[in-house]
Amino acid sequence: MSLKSLFEPESVAVVGASRKEEKAGHVILKNLTEGGFKGEIVAINPAVNTLLGCSCYPSLAAYGKDIDLVVIALPQKDVKEAVAECAKVNASGVVVIASGFKEVGAEEARLEQQIADFCVRHGMRLLGPNCLGFINTDINLNVTFAKTRPSPGGISVFSQSGALCSVMIDLAEEQHLGLSKVISIGNKADIAGFDVLSYLANDPQTKVIVGYLEDIATGKNFVKAAEEASSKKPVIILKSGTTAAGLRAASSHTGVLATDESAYGAVFKRAGVIRADSFEALLDVASALSMQPLPKGDNVLIVTNAGGPGILAADAVENAGMKVAELDDKVTTFLSHELLSQVNSASPIDVLGDAEPSRYASVIKAAQADAGVDSILIILSPQAMSKPAETARAIVGSLDGSKPVVATFMGGSALLPARHELTAAGLPHYKSPERAITALRGMSAYANWKQRPPRMVTRFRVNRRRVERILSRRQRTGRLQLGEVKGKDVLGAYGFHVPDGALASSAEEAREIAERIGFPVAMKIVSPDIVHKSDLGGVFLNVANGEAADDSYELMNLKIRKKVPEAHIEGVYVEKMIGKGLEVIIGMTRDPQFGPMLMFGLGGIFVEVMKDVTFHLAPITEQEAIQMLKSTKSYDMLQGRRGQDGVDLSAIASGLQRISQLTTDFPQILELDINPFIVGDFGSEPIVADVRMTLAAMQEKE
Amino acid sequence: MSLKSLFEPESVAVVGASRKEEKAGHVILKNLTEGGFKGEIVAINPAVNTLLGCSCYPSLAAYGKDIDLVVIALPQKDVKEAVAECAKVNASGVVVIASGFKEVGAEEARLEQQIADFCVRHGMRLLGPNCLGFINTDINLNVTFAKTRPSPGGISVFSQSGALCSVMIDLAEEQHLGLSKVISIGNKADIAGFDVLSYLANDPQTKVIVGYLEDIATGKNFVKAAEEASSKKPVIILKSGTTAAGLRAASSHTGVLATDESAYGAVFKRAGVIRADSFEALLDVASALSMQPLPKGDNVLIVTNAGGPGILAADAVENAGMKVAELDDKVTTFLSHELLSQVNSASPIDVLGDAEPSRYASVIKAAQADAGVDSILIILSPQAMSKPAETARAIVGSLDGSKPVVATFMGGSALLPARHELTAAGLPHYKSPERAITALRGMSAYANWKQRPPRMVTRFRVNRRRVERILSRRQRTGRLQLGEVKGKDVLGAYGFHVPDGALASSAEEAREIAERIGFPVAMKIVSPDIVHKSDLGGVFLNVANGEAADDSYELMNLKIRKKVPEAHIEGVYVEKMIGKGLEVIIGMTRDPQFGPMLMFGLGGIFVEVMKDVTFHLAPITEQEAIQMLKSTKSYDMLQGRRGQDGVDLSAIASGLQRISQLTTDFPQILELDINPFIVGDFGSEPIVADVRMTLAAMQEKE
Repeated sequence: MSLKSLFEPESVAVVGASRKEEKAGHVILKNLTEGGFKGEIVAINPAVNTLLGCSCYPSLAAYGKDIDLVVIALPQKDVKEAVAECAKVNASGVVVIASGFKEVGAEEARLEQQIADFCVRHGMRLLGPNCLGFINTDINLNVTFAKTRPSPGGISVFSQSGALCSVMIDLAEEQHLGLSKVISIGNKADIAGFDVLSYLANDPQTKVIVGYLEDIATGKNFVKAAEEASSKKPVIILKSGTTAAGLRAASSHTGVLATDESAYGAVFKRAGVIRADSFEALLDVASALSMQPLPKGDNVLIVTNAGGPGILAADAVENAGMKVAELDDKVTTFLSHELLSQVNSASPIDVLGDAEPSRYASVIKAAQADAGVDSILIILSPQAMSKPAETARAIVGSLDGSKPVVATFMGGSALLPARHELTAAGLPHYKSPERAITALRGMSAYANWKQRPPRMVTRFRVNRRRVERILSRRQRTGRLQLGEVKGKDVLGAYGFHVPDGALASSAEEAREIAERIGFPVAMKIVSPDIVHKSDLGGVFLNVANGEAADDSYELMNLKIRKKVPEAHIEGVYVEKMIGKGLEVIIGMTRDPQFGPMLMFGLGGIFVEVMKDVTFHLAPITEQEAIQMLKSTKSYDMLQGRRGQDGVDLSAIASGLQRISQLTTDFPQILELDINPFIVGDFGSEPIVADVRMTLAAMQEKE
Repeated sequence: MSLKSLFEPESVAVVGASRKEEKAGHVILKNLTEGGFKGEIVAINPAVNTLLGCSCYPSLAAYGKDIDLVVIALPQKDVKEAVAECAKVNASGVVVIASGFKEVGAEEARLEQQIADFCVRHGMRLLGPNCLGFINTDINLNVTFAKTRPSPGGISVFSQSGALCSVMIDLAEEQHLGLSKVISIGNKADIAGFDVLSYLANDPQTKVIVGYLEDIATGKNFVKAAEEASSKKPVIILKSGTTAAGLRAASSHTGVLATDESAYGAVFKRAGVIRADSFEALLDVASALSMQPLPKGDNVLIVTNAGGPGILAADAVENAGMKVAELDDKVTTFLSHELLSQVNSASPIDVLGDAEPSRYASVIKAAQADAGVDSILIILSPQAMSKPAETARAIVGSLDGSKPVVATFMGGSALLPARHELTAAGLPHYKSPERAITALRGMSAYANWKQRPPRMVTRFRVNRRRVERILSRRQRTGRLQLGEVKGKDVLGAYGFHVPDGALASSAEEAREIAERIGFPVAMKIVSPDIVHKSDLGGVFLNVANGEAADDSYELMNLKIRKKVPEAHIEGVYVEKMIGKGLEVIIGMTRDPQFGPMLMFGLGGIFVEVMKDVTFHLAPITEQEAIQMLKSTKSYDMLQGRRGQDGVDLSAIASGLQRISQLTTDFPQILELDINPFIVGDFGSEPIVADVRMTLAAMQEKE
């Protein structure tokens, strides 16, 4: 059911409205009545007749009419009963403020679940429990116990932490940022982040969405909602619990199982979500996006009246992966003419310490007309003759709205009027050059995502039937680990090139197979009990002739029996020796929340020691697969170094796409690792040298 | 000459004192007269008799008495003459405010040099030019044109950027931080960062030193001064120009040649300098250090009244390389007893949303007594019943000064009184948990440096004479590139193990040498014109017998002559084949500022592709060398993976120490690369497989 009738109700009841000023039930009613909400307001309190100018009723039933939204500000133990009452007045939305549910223990979690289930059965959407409530400034509705009342504006905020919700209200007010909706989602018993994202995506008053999340419990819904929302407006999210310590803190607080941190990175990137690195960055990025147009590229022009801050800004630009823009020669000539050498046009542009307001304005006008400039950071640090407020006015007057412009007026409270002048005119202000660049980086990342090419997922022609048979047989018999032989069988059916080979159960058979496929061959022990084959002497390479094949079979069996007497040996796999090439690893891990997560890394130490791997959510497009390769540090190796030829990148990309198709087709594949996947130069066929696969246990039929 | 008489003068003259309020010469005199300076103040202005209550003289000579400090606030063109006047009044210090010197061009740089030389010759120290002046709050002396007057306190600031100097004054005042000295060093014509560091290190009023630098022109002096200063008090420095873009910006601004960025990292670490990552971090770290004791370890206890901010803090702690502390079980039991379960003692400690001030106090008292807690971050985010100011008071009352405590009261301006209460009582406050943790990380890094073991540089017994002979012959004959043969000769003299070998000039000789040292041998072409020997077929390995040695000699010469006909071939180096081992690279690059910078990295792709290398200033101790190995990402490889044996770390460390000794003994070695240095398991002798060395050209005798 839509959240519209919850967040945009025409009548609101506060259950647990209280006379005591320090109680949430008092503050909420006060915020509601003083906010200017035009709809019906009802207070429920059996002990009084009126409260803060509202008529009081002993119960919802006593009020007798239908109510859109019920806010329950009662202690935890009374919540269940109160929610039951809500159904009787045909409420569309219920907000539960009390804590003491899922975050406390298992029994309380059950109670929370019962309440949520009850709401669903009765067509009511539930916000909370353990939340601050919500604010909708468009209709002057404030059902929170926050102390600060936000000004209306285009930024909407949602937060899993009620405390950070009210901090963001405070900070927005302090920074003169207007808010549209503020939604505290608390324990997310019913309404989760993705619901709110969808609602805000379609809310015409919301221009920018800001979110704080500690976990994402319904990954696929989240990805879908986030991607849809991002396509309509910028979404900035701070996801905490990114470290082991943070995760422990978050789990003890939210009681939710963790997804791998790398999955969040992949998910946010795919969905176009701008990820905030710190709490301060959340509103820093949001304010720029709410006030300024998106940049067309990554070239940041820095305009400053002092060298030091300009250098700091230049460092920040490069650290953010962007470029310091230079002015076009014509523009430089024009400027030096107009301003009589009062400007040092070498980038960053130094308007010098004695800069008049008009000098800033001239440079900004010229920069806006310069096609090589995508965004502008203006720095002022007050000098003897600086006129900050006049300069702010001149800057504001010079803007044509064609490119994002942000400002940093560095210094103390003497600059407050100038800063206010800037933000009031829609030019976002930051306390340091570094923070201003963080905002531009967020804008730039979002602009790049918006300009991405359409996603076209290739479907390869495959033998799906064959894989279905192999997997279901394995699942039925409970042999959930697929080794090299069956794994190659599966991959072969999905178009991977696997070397010619077969399983031998005797030395004689090994020799026959080898002679059939041609020498030299590789021989590998096949046993479900042996993982690191080569460490135990279970791999012989370059077996050159029939006699050697014969000997190798015997010797290998002897060795393995001696070293691992308890291992069940199925035989020896004899296959065509593989030519040389670069060893890479491609694979998939099924994330509990987000589904198949594709992985790529250069083989061996690159993955094991350097952890140089990248992830991407399946299904993947060819461009995204190429992008995965490019985003590793070891990409140089793929391109070829010191005059060596590079490898065929599209062959690796195609491998990733085929794994994407396979693991999307077969959700029972939990893990898949092709290690190594051997890639040669352009046009050559890459080869699956070894593979391992893990299947899910078969679901019991009920 | 000491800077004491400059920064602590008894008489001050302002040359260029002006009636016009917007002139620096007016503002400086105003700041000086209004500041309460007890010494003699003289204004020099030929046009008036008195100015701002001071007697005016037409010239220094006209005043007729000696003056300690002369501040020259005249335009660039008049500075030289004014400085000449200073000598006549026996000034100890001269401050030149005007810009338009080195930062503008070569001619102006010469003028600056002349002025500086003149000062030196006349026993005067020169601050600037192109600077803001300086402030010494201890004697109420302010000879800057900064608009804000700092309050006295224990933090001293120096800055290469005048603009950032005045911004720091503003911010310190806004954050209620007191300053002792504020010194704008400008173009550093005479007084540089290291001079100021030495002065502040010995200044009893200065407790913490904060610096902003764009370049370091006299590296060795800086290292010495910084290390001495750090051993007395914390030094926090923001070094800008760390990226290519920042460097370009800095060079156009300061006109100084760049040192490699990695060198700064190594230098700061060695000297115990706390490096700030951003402008805001500078004062964030300084305020904690100026108010709180140093931590004994890295365990940070987080105390919060809300989950979300606690998780953010926990993430920040782990990202900073520190640990989230847990309370001791006994403490937990005590607390749950005393506070009747009003606290969730799982870390972070949650005192819950309804926390009374006393609840915070109880937890902090307990945490201060808990040996597992090294520092404490207190978070308050205002909730319905929070009493921020009372809580601040209760927190302050509970402190015993045994451990560093910092606080974050998150939210808007309603918290200002509470925050002021905290800082006034010496408890530093930060706007976000992340920034608070940045401060604790700085403290922790400094504390660790202070606790480092004494530096004992090993001197190995070497054949220094032999190296001296080799190098001076090469320098005399201008052959400055030492290849494998001579390079191994030099390293052998410094105790490195080099394989037995000799240079052959004929096939016959090659055979004889090979037979003498024993097969198998390696054979390598020796030519000053060939760098990548193996790429051109100039390396044969595992040559097994006399005939093969003979053939190899001929074949190699044939190949190379064909491929590089113009190459001068000196012969073929025949040496004992080297056993297997791990290939690492150790080397040295002589930084123009800081001298020999030792380098270590795992061979091949680790260095070339992953850039996984570390640097350290020579001379190096054994512990520092081991630390270099540990700080690479590829350290896992050295320790041995998957049951493989690790390599002998002390052998690599010893190699680094020997290079350290060699390049300290011989400053003419500009570059040295042992690549690869082959290391085996513990106790085995590591081997120099190849080496290259570059010498400085011989200085012409005058």
